[in-house]
Amino acid sequence: MKRIAFLVVAIATVAGVVASMAPASGRADDQAVPIFGIRIPAGYRDWRLISVAHEEGTLHSFAAILGNDVAIKAYREGKLPYPDGTIIAALHYSHAPSEENDKVFGNPQSFVPGAPTNVQFIVKDAKKYAATGGWGFGHFNQDGTPGNDALMKTCFPCHAKASRDLVFTRYAP
Amino acid sequence: MKRIAFLVVAIATVAGVVASMAPASGRADDQAVPIFGIRIPAGYRDWRLISVAHEEGTLHSFAAILGNDVAIKAYREGKLPYPDGTIIAALHYSHAPSEENDKVFGNPQSFVPGAPTNVQFIVKDAKKYAATGGWGFGHFNQDGTPGNDALMKTCFPCHAKASRDLVFTRYAP
Repeated sequence: MKRIAFLVVAIATVAGVVASMAPASGRADDQAVPIFGIRIPAGYRDWRLISVAHEEGTLHSFAAILGNDVAIKAYREGKLPYPDGTIIAALHYSHAPSEENDKVFGNPQSFVPGAPTNVQFIVKDAKKYAATGGWGFGHFNQDGTPGNDALMKTCFPCHAKASRDLVFTRYAP
Repeated sequence: MKRIAFLVVAIATVAGVVASMAPASGRADDQAVPIFGIRIPAGYRDWRLISVAHEEGTLHSFAAILGNDVAIKAYREGKLPYPDGTIIAALHYSHAPSEENDKVFGNPQSFVPGAPTNVQFIVKDAKKYAATGGWGFGHFNQDGTPGNDALMKTCFPCHAKASRDLVFTRYAP
């Protein structure tokens, strides 16, 4: 549970982004998560980079954090709170050793994304999601299925502890 | 040295991309690296994500790997060798613990990009860079200064050991 709540970062088109998309542009899904009604936003895999992240402990997870245009603009301008329409995506993978790289470099030191595990989104809509700090949360397993009700209830309490408008991720220059 | 050669991934506009750019879109530089004559390509910070990477050992480095449109297309189509015009960028940071995240989650498990350290590029031009496998290499320190001659000589021998057209980084879906 902690894992989910942890890096959940953003999504769902404020009004309900459509699900279908080419595999190249991201994972496909046509189901919305409970509570927030968020679906996988089309084309999120083409969004620009906000930062990267790595969780150890029991997770061993690797993440790329991407943002839609509204998110990138807000991050670069240092604008808080994030404006309505902001969507932040966290693409999660296992944190896997690279056998090829380690062999080339002679040391077990290189880690790369292993199997994709899930993709998470947070979507800013101050009015629609007023009860959860202005953010809606989305979680989608690798097979495209959305997180269940119990899981989705863990997102807000954890993000509420983040110091910058419920968002943990900072911009990497 | 190994560090440099290691994650060097790609850049330099084939014909010599211009240096000036807004801080928001990437680091600024107006000097070309020796040997390859590569400069920091304008707008690389807006490029799409290829993958992320993490090096341990003496490096403790975190990387985001981005690609220009030619690179992204080639990666998604699984095209090898990469076509001329491919530019891959590796944005390097220190691999730093996140005090805020660890506090929220109660475990020292969260790592984020610390200080930026350098940005590296590989640029495909089969003819121009025929002597180095068709790739030109660029390394720029955080202050914008290019890598020196000795450093730039370490790029090719290391990348020559990569199994997919001298490129270590694979595409993260």
